[in-house]
This record gives sequence, structure tokens and C-alpha cells, in this order.
Amino acid sequence: MRDVAVIGVGMNRWGELWEKSHRDIWTEAALQAIADAGVERVESMYVGCMSGGLFMGQEHLGPLLAEQLGCGPIPGTRVESACASGGLSFRQAYFDVASGAHDIVLATGLEKMTDVDGAAATYALSTAADQEYECYQGITFPGLYAMMARAHMHRYGTTRRQLADVAVKNHQHGSMNPLAQFQGKITAEQVETSVLVADPLRILDCSPITDGAAAVVLAPVEMAKKLTRKPLVRVAASAHATDHMALHDRNDLCWIESTAVAARSAYEQAGIGPAKLSFCEVHDCFTIAEVMVIEALGIAEKGKGGEAASSGRTALGGAIPVNPSGGLKSKGHPVGATGIAQIREAVMQLREECGPRQVGKARYGLTQNMGGTGASSVVHIFERI
Amino acid sequence: MRDVAVIGVGMNRWGELWEKSHRDIWTEAALQAIADAGVERVESMYVGCMSGGLFMGQEHLGPLLAEQLGCGPIPGTRVESACASGGLSFRQAYFDVASGAHDIVLATGLEKMTDVDGAAATYALSTAADQEYECYQGITFPGLYAMMARAHMHRYGTTRRQLADVAVKNHQHGSMNPLAQFQGKITAEQVETSVLVADPLRILDCSPITDGAAAVVLAPVEMAKKLTRKPLVRVAASAHATDHMALHDRNDLCWIESTAVAARSAYEQAGIGPAKLSFCEVHDCFTIAEVMVIEALGIAEKGKGGEAASSGRTALGGAIPVNPSGGLKSKGHPVGATGIAQIREAVMQLREECGPRQVGKARYGLTQNMGGTGASSVVHIFERI
Repeated sequence: MRDVAVIGVGMNRWGELWEKSHRDIWTEAALQAIADAGVERVESMYVGCMSGGLFMGQEHLGPLLAEQLGCGPIPGTRVESACASGGLSFRQAYFDVASGAHDIVLATGLEKMTDVDGAAATYALSTAADQEYECYQGITFPGLYAMMARAHMHRYGTTRRQLADVAVKNHQHGSMNPLAQFQGKITAEQVETSVLVADPLRILDCSPITDGAAAVVLAPVEMAKKLTRKPLVRVAASAHATDHMALHDRNDLCWIESTAVAARSAYEQAGIGPAKLSFCEVHDCFTIAEVMVIEALGIAEKGKGGEAASSGRTALGGAIPVNPSGGLKSKGHPVGATGIAQIREAVMQLREECGPRQVGKARYGLTQNMGGTGASSVVHIFERI
Repeated sequence: MRDVAVIGVGMNRWGELWEKSHRDIWTEAALQAIADAGVERVESMYVGCMSGGLFMGQEHLGPLLAEQLGCGPIPGTRVESACASGGLSFRQAYFDVASGAHDIVLATGLEKMTDVDGAAATYALSTAADQEYECYQGITFPGLYAMMARAHMHRYGTTRRQLADVAVKNHQHGSMNPLAQFQGKITAEQVETSVLVADPLRILDCSPITDGAAAVVLAPVEMAKKLTRKPLVRVAASAHATDHMALHDRNDLCWIESTAVAARSAYEQAGIGPAKLSFCEVHDCFTIAEVMVIEALGIAEKGKGGEAASSGRTALGGAIPVNPSGGLKSKGHPVGATGIAQIREAVMQLREECGPRQVGKARYGLTQNMGGTGASSVVHIFERI
């Protein structure tokens, strides 16, 4: 396999973008990434999108967006793995370059979620779970994560305040991200008194419904050296794992096995352990998700994920900043775009382009993107070379 | 890139399978392919599916089906390009093996279309077109292909009878395929007097709504030599191209440019021209589609695609049999599965396993799978080595 670098990144301002179509949003991000890479054209492109059909009434986004970019007849491929669609889109683009099939490849993610009403959005999101055995029985995603939270609190003593501290930290980070959906800081008291969604999770424990897109450009490392004068960021590892779809089939409600499996493979590929990481971007669709994910990544001990945010360890300035971008919680969560936006943040952090939210000088950064309640996880490690 | 072989194939009996779930259908095909390959496990898998959300209320099929197969935590990736989802799923699996990321990879396709009513199915299929500029204005897929047919008839003198002859030929072929949805032969008179759908296309010009799945197993050629005693079938070319989504944006209503672009690339990769092909499996979603596709593939001259079926040239026993499996027309068209079923047929033909519909001894076979009215095309060439 050829060594692969990320040479360009792009993202639009995320939010409730009723005045823009999915075409506009995506093209803004894609053109930015291409300009940032300093290339004139791409040879192949990928789109991570969870449910074009249910959110936008539009599947077949590969050719539609290739045309929008003025890049037809290049291959345009849509990849889906629920909320991990973005991370997986990057991984397929990585194979495309690593295999030698193409040199300059665009990996993107997109979701336009606010053109349908709340009930339709809840239904669309529920297709990420095991419909027949979970959602058709009446549960929604906040309900599934609430059960995971309750189990974690019961077994490990994780507290309501620790969950709030995850949200507070990520909003604090997001207040320094000019493209985040929510840029206001919040307090633990605000989280704990916000509207109850599914006990113990309140509205400020939940990532929002968002319209947004993100894009990155990949190239072989050897070619990248000639293409860009920016610091070079190499894909040190790409890993993907699955787990039982339904929560009731899992061995352990408090443990995200697909993330643990993907992380083990990623650390082995990169030849490093979690101690070498300078920061992580993880999938905090709910506050409890960040708690459990950092345990599966080996950043916190099993059962100790709750303490990490409260102690300041995972904040900017702490030992291992988690979600310097603001995470899904504050940056927003257009499901198909999230995994690519995480990679954009990782590349910008490694290139030291993040301004007030810069983690400092960094060599390794990790991104973790997951689908459903962890039925799929995609983990990448990036290295500044 | 590593040389890649297809070492196993599987498919269930296609049709209106109300008594079976999408899990059952897919698993039947996948297990068959794995057994045919003679391997104990696969390391990674792909699912081509057009609209899990609109047809089944279930996205996130990667982990769901990996679990169903008992293969979690392996990577399970869903790929979508409307009716070309199957062909593209194979192509991503091909990159996975060619890049060296995995050795034994399962490429599958699935669509369960009959659990929704006709209006919902028509809506779901319309998401393969440019919704905002085509289907929201009232047109459906038969209407789009009817316009292409009218243009072809007007410019080249293609006749109503020639279109009927495509359907007659493919039903004749399908009558020898025990897994086809329709195994009855039809006459040109029956086609021409069947219910009018969108003038000039009648119901017997249209492929049906189908439940079905298909699967194939890929491995590096070097490893395949040790794994199987069956004749070895190598992937000689993999190509993918896009075009304008909406028909009104195309340069030519009578020409499928994405197929022509992909075919050029495929012939170049394989180092052959169309004259070397022993047979093709092409995307005859409507009779006019086969007429236009064989022109774009260089099997018939521009404007002469209509004569090919009428003269017997593309029938079994003719100079270049097209759709020996029965094609979408008779075999059925579970959209996400079609591209994989084409590859299954190609592999079985090259291995001389097709019984009464065997094309004879063959070295090269081509598969062409397309999305929408040709906004995306995926072309593969297979070689018996």
C-alpha cells in the first residue's frame, strides 16, 4: 500500500441552513478543500451520507455532487455507515489512493437534516439502530444512550455532574470554533436543569440536528511533498470494526467494543499507544458517548471516563485534549459530515492552524467516528511528518 | 495494485419474497458465495443497497449484515450509487483487496423492494434521478427512459418491434435461469400489446420490482490459486464514471456517456477491445437501455443497437450474447443486488457452469451496471486465466 497524506481541508459554517440546498453546502466545503490543497482537479470522490433518501429525498449523490463540482465524469461514490458515514467515506478514499487506483481523491461528508420535521428526523435517525428489534418497539436514540448511561452510572458510579462536564468542556472548545453551530459557553447547572429527554440525558447532553458538509483531499505522500508547502499530515492508521446492531445483543452495555477493536488495530498500524496521542476528536453524540469512547480508546481507564472531563484532563490545556473542535455537541452533528469534520480538525491541529483552540505542537492525533450505539466504529490516526 | 480474482458466487431465488426478511435473503446469498469459495471466513465485506431507508426503514446495513453472518467485528461497508450500487460495492471490495488491506473480501448487493406499496416504491426509485429538477416536476423513471426511447426512434429509426425483441430475447435467456424472477418466455406481440406505461414503453419493456440479493468473494490471484480448484477468474478491469444527473443537462439523449467513458477505461485496463468479449451482462432496466448501452460499449454501432436483438446477434448462439442470465428484464431488478448478480453470471459463464444458458467456452466477459438514466456507470471485465 502507498503512504497517503491529507493535503487539503474544507467545511462550511454548520447550523440550520434553510436558505441553502444540500448542493450549496457540499460544494462550499468541497471547493474549500480543493483550494486548500492547491490542486486544480480531483480524480475520484467519495460522499459520506447517512440517509439521503429520508432526509432529502435524494439518493445517488455521487454523480449529483460530482456534477455540482464540475468534475463529472470522475467516479463519485457514496458510502454509508449511519453516523460513521463520514469516517468510512475517508477510509474508502484512502483505499482508492493507497491501492494506486487514483492519486488526488476528494473525501467528503454531507447531511441536510433540517428540511424535515422533528418526527421525520427521529425516524430517519432510528434507521441507524436495529429497526425491527429496537426502534419499531418504541425506543429512540436518546433512549438507547440513556440506558447505556444508566448502566455506566450504576456500575462505575459515574455522576450526572460528570456528564454535564463533558458538555461544558465541548461548548467551551466550540466557542473558539468559528464554524461551530453553537458557539456559546454553557454551565453544568444549565445542563442539569435543561429539558429532560430520556432520563438521565437532558437536551444539553445531546448533539443537535444540523445541516453541514466537510471535505478533505488525499494524495500519495510522495506526490504531496511536491504539491504543498504546508506541513505534511500522513494517514498513520485506518481501522473499521462492527458490533451487534441492537443494544440488547451486546456483551456489555458499558463498553463500546467496535471502538476498542478498531483502536487496537489503529494503534498497531501506527506503531504507537494512546500515550503518544496529542489530542483526539471523538463521537460525542451524547455526553455519555464521549465517556465510554475514551475508555475504549485507552485514554481513560475502564469506568473512569466520567472523571476525565471533570478533572480537566481532556480539556484544552489538559494532558489529552478531547474534541478541541467542540465535538458533535457544540460543532453540530450533520451525521454524514461528522467523520470528515473530525479529520479536518485533526489535520488543522497537526498543521497548527487552529488559533485559540490550538492544542499546541502535536505529532499524533486520533479521530473516532461511530454509527448507531456503536454498531460500527471508524478510527484513524494522523501523523505530522 | 495486486491482481484480484473472484473465487465464489451466490444468489437467492429472486422474486416477491414477502415471507422472507432482508436479513434472510442476504444471508442465503452470502453463505452460498462463501461456501462456493471454500473459505472459512471473510475479513471485510461490502453491501450495495440503493435505499435501505425508503424501502426497508433500515440504513446501517454494514454492521447489521456482518452480525447476521456471524462475522462481526469485521468491517462492513455499505456503498450506494442508485441501481449501480452492486457494481460499485464490488469495485470498493476490489480496491480493498488490490490495496493489500484485506485478502478475503465479500462483495454483496441487496434490495428488498416489495414491502412498500407501488407509490412508495416509485418515490424511492425516483431518488436515483435529480429530484429537484426531474421527479418533483412529475416525471418518473419510465417517463425518463420513454423520452430517451422516443429520441432514439426519431433519430435512428429504432422500431417498436426492436424494443420488443430485446425483451423477448432476455425472457428466452431467463427461461433457463432457475433463480430468475420470471422464467416464462414471451412473444413480441405480447410485449407490444401489454399495458402502456409511458409511451412508447409498455409494461413488458420494464424490469420489475424485486426482492433479492447476490454475493461474490474476492481474493488476491496468488492466494486464489491455492484456495480453489475451480477455473480462476481474474478482474481484468474496474471502471466507474459519472454524467449529468438530469436528462435535460446531457449533451445527447440517445447516448449513455458514463458507460462510454467507463468502457474506454475498462478496455484500456484489460488491454482488449469489445471484439474480444465472449458475452456481456448489461443494465436493461428498460428495453431501450440495453439498446443504448450496447452502443456505448462498442458492441453495436451508434444508432444500430436496436437491430442487434432483432438479428439474433446478441442472443445465446449469436456473435456476442448479451444478458445470458436473462438480464434485469427477466431475472428481476432488486436494484442494489443487480450489479453483483451480473458479476455472478460472468464468473459462472467463464467457469462454464451455466448449463443450458452457457455461452460456450469464454475467455473475457463484461458487466455494465448503471444508476438512474446513466448518471453513473460501473464497468468490469473478467478474464478466465
